[in-house]
Amino acid sequence: MSEEQKWLSEDEQRAWRALMAVVVLLPGALDTQLQRDSHLSNFEYGVLAMLSEAPDRTLRMSQLATLNDSSLSRLSHVARRLEERGSIIRRQCADDRRANIATLTDEGYALVKEAAPGHVARVRELIFDRLSPKQIGELEQIGDAIRSNLDPEKRMPTYVT
Amino acid sequence: MSEEQKWLSEDEQRAWRALMAVVVLLPGALDTQLQRDSHLSNFEYGVLAMLSEAPDRTLRMSQLATLNDSSLSRLSHVARRLEERGSIIRRQCADDRRANIATLTDEGYALVKEAAPGHVARVRELIFDRLSPKQIGELEQIGDAIRSNLDPEKRMPTYVT
Repeated sequence: MSEEQKWLSEDEQRAWRALMAVVVLLPGALDTQLQRDSHLSNFEYGVLAMLSEAPDRTLRMSQLATLNDSSLSRLSHVARRLEERGSIIRRQCADDRRANIATLTDEGYALVKEAAPGHVARVRELIFDRLSPKQIGELEQIGDAIRSNLDPEKRMPTYVT
Repeated sequence: MSEEQKWLSEDEQRAWRALMAVVVLLPGALDTQLQRDSHLSNFEYGVLAMLSEAPDRTLRMSQLATLNDSSLSRLSHVARRLEERGSIIRRQCADDRRANIATLTDEGYALVKEAAPGHVARVRELIFDRLSPKQIGELEQIGDAIRSNLDPEKRMPTYVT
């Protein structure tokens, strides 16, 4: 590999720094609002939001883990807390006894519905208020180009609050 | 708040999904390569890379935590592992005995130097091989616009492997 292949150009370095700042800082900024207003982490919110859009408000735990790019053990830890809070119920899948499924309760649905407007307002404030309509289109194109490599099967969430 | 203020437009939703896919999946994809080739997490790599560019290869632990948007306790956990591996040394700051500092060892410097080419190749493969020169410029502009709100003081790393 030659030197020029190995290292990033100046332009690439600036773009990389800007992207990494967003990747590192955005989850925490979303967390802060959700924790303060709804006592939910961004991860917990994502789990509840995905369940709220699934058929019968139910998904396999393994699907939920994949959708959140999470290990099953991390998800189980979070799911236990959500269950203690009355937001979800976990049980064995009737069709496949090795699989566990999670269902959003009515309380959980109310929680995510109540949390959504504040979360969306924060997303708007952090992202979309800063971008022109043209940039919003560019962001989609750039994000999709990167995502096509990271997530070729488009496993990632389709929910958007 | 009116309905149209509360919810994202179709264009915004598509951009948001694409961005969140990158935010959720990119750290894991970088981790996988670094773990396989250098037995380092992306977080550990970031700590070593920042120290490698700091004066005297030394930073306060509190600075390192801020730069990685990490709690001090998470950083301490990671720093203990890096110290056991011989990559860094931690000690009290001579000027301020309440503060702890971390210094990259020669072994740690060699480790990050050895890890860098594979990491950069992965960054190139995941990001820059997918984008046109025009899109790289757009990514910088968009990233900086979002970052200006997330990180007004530009605390985030200036290192780029």
